Amino acid sequence: MHEDNEAGGRVTLAAVAKEAGVSMPTVSKVLNGRSDVSSATRAKVERLLELHGYRRRSQPASRSPLIELVFHELESIWAMELIRGVENVAKENRATVVLTESGTRHAPAADWLPGVLQRRPLGVVLVFSTLPEDVKRRLRAAAIPFVVIDPAGDPDPDVPSVGSANWAGGLAATRHLTDQGHERVAIITGPEDMLCSLARLDGYRSAMAMAGLEADPRLTRYGDFHVQGGFEHAMDLLDGPDRPTAVFAGSDLQALGVLEAARVKGLRVPEDLSVVGYDDVPLAQWSSPPLTTVHQPLRSMAEEAARMLLRPDDPGTAAQRIELATRLVVRQSTAAPRKK
Amino acid sequence: MHEDNEAGGRVTLAAVAKEAGVSMPTVSKVLNGRSDVSSATRAKVERLLELHGYRRRSQPASRSPLIELVFHELESIWAMELIRGVENVAKENRATVVLTESGTRHAPAADWLPGVLQRRPLGVVLVFSTLPEDVKRRLRAAAIPFVVIDPAGDPDPDVPSVGSANWAGGLAATRHLTDQGHERVAIITGPEDMLCSLARLDGYRSAMAMAGLEADPRLTRYGDFHVQGGFEHAMDLLDGPDRPTAVFAGSDLQALGVLEAARVKGLRVPEDLSVVGYDDVPLAQWSSPPLTTVHQPLRSMAEEAARMLLRPDDPGTAAQRIELATRLVVRQSTAAPRKK
Repeated sequence: MHEDNEAGGRVTLAAVAKEAGVSMPTVSKVLNGRSDVSSATRAKVERLLELHGYRRRSQPASRSPLIELVFHELESIWAMELIRGVENVAKENRATVVLTESGTRHAPAADWLPGVLQRRPLGVVLVFSTLPEDVKRRLRAAAIPFVVIDPAGDPDPDVPSVGSANWAGGLAATRHLTDQGHERVAIITGPEDMLCSLARLDGYRSAMAMAGLEADPRLTRYGDFHVQGGFEHAMDLLDGPDRPTAVFAGSDLQALGVLEAARVKGLRVPEDLSVVGYDDVPLAQWSSPPLTTVHQPLRSMAEEAARMLLRPDDPGTAAQRIELATRLVVRQSTAAPRKK
Repeated sequence: MHEDNEAGGRVTLAAVAKEAGVSMPTVSKVLNGRSDVSSATRAKVERLLELHGYRRRSQPASRSPLIELVFHELESIWAMELIRGVENVAKENRATVVLTESGTRHAPAADWLPGVLQRRPLGVVLVFSTLPEDVKRRLRAAAIPFVVIDPAGDPDPDVPSVGSANWAGGLAATRHLTDQGHERVAIITGPEDMLCSLARLDGYRSAMAMAGLEADPRLTRYGDFHVQGGFEHAMDLLDGPDRPTAVFAGSDLQALGVLEAARVKGLRVPEDLSVVGYDDVPLAQWSSPPLTTVHQPLRSMAEEAARMLLRPDDPGTAAQRIELATRLVVRQSTAAPRKK
């Protein structure tokens, strides 16, 4: 193993400066995320730093006791659980959480990176599926460890990430329904372009097959993980004589939409219709009736991600994927179907 | 007006050091929240700094583009809306949000302050009713502006704060019910030791009196602002022949508890029982039926608090109280009572 030390670091930096044809202060500016360097020079220096395996040694004095948490969407019902998990680990380590909402569902915005490089946090937890190459390169060059929380289930192979077991969750939700005797079971999964939606759908299909049941394609719907989508699909699914007796709703918010559709249609839950959610966010236990759902351990996932950052063995170098188990939580929105 | 400037600041510091019988570096350590100063020396220096009206001039170069947000309870259903509001203003000002959960409902923990003094943020938004004297003194000595978000309605007179109109909210919720013809209206307000609970209760009483109705003391309950408390009080209120036809639930979470109690009792909402919440957090529109509730503008309150921090006229000096208006949002959980 390469033992990095102060002297080694300086030698490498000088070599990089010479090879790039720039001064040492310029290399230093690149490392510190300063904006007064041309993008061409930045790119050249970063490539060389990476090529030579330069890795800034963690110097306690130069690192701020901050853990950065970056979201694409604070609106998400998940956000609070994830913040909570990172905050727990920050407290244990006498660090403080810095919160940023930035970018799209898939990648952080370009203006986020310079701020991080200047703050020099202990590490960064990102709630995104994929990270652009230059973000990874610049974080690595600055020796800022990062971990992705990826509930969407689409991990970047060279980035450490924490997810959960979506296929097993879909299987457990559906088996709970078929075990009670439901035969016409509908699924409203998430968006078709998210792997977690597909994994939950495949779990549903396997459970149906295991019970010797056909998964009627008319009972498979792709939602948006929000209440309105659940409501609209359920209004359609519950229309007509051959309606399902149970709906696996793919998310707790979609399940709330199904509950409201049942109320509008005059169907009682669980007597006339069983409903299973997914996520087990706090509101799942506050709905009426309280939701049977698949617990996705969001808070533990965030804790795990933050702990991976703080481990001494430099998680930035060895990509690692951890999937935490999901488990079914049975409450009052499911029951055996009524005898025909 | 005293014009503070670099030279003036230095003179004052030297005078303070001399008067306290300590060195200039010691005074500087106190100002920067360093822990290597005895508490006796710190107290003496801080008292003198305050006595002489020392106020560190804002030096853009020495301030981090951070806005600190400090909570006592991240679990709160309010937290996400408040984070969101501060994040909006931070983005507009190219600043980043630092999040801390610390202390009790009433005051931040002692270990929080040194970190803030070291980070030197643009300002601090605190979600607490009251701040201990030494916290105020040390933040002022360090020229770090602070504003309290106080949804509990119990402002500290010498601290700038943002609240909302609780009495008017209680009045509007209750008038909506009496206007529809409800005569037996119950209230489950918040904890008896929070002024916002008392203000909402007084608004309820005034609305009942305005409608010529008696506020039956058996129909007044103090909850805990959580679902379970709402459920338990509602189970008791709905037991018996002389039950109320409407409940003003004091918070959206308590209203969810009332909805669940109605379901358990076989009462339909709104046909058999009208329910009004308070807060209008996102889940109010996702419940079944969607809740009529009083919108408390939490996000706007947080935005207003963050903007007060960033104003050039030093909000830390002139205590200021802003109360934003609440408004009734009518959804589907309320209707006229059935004819007897």
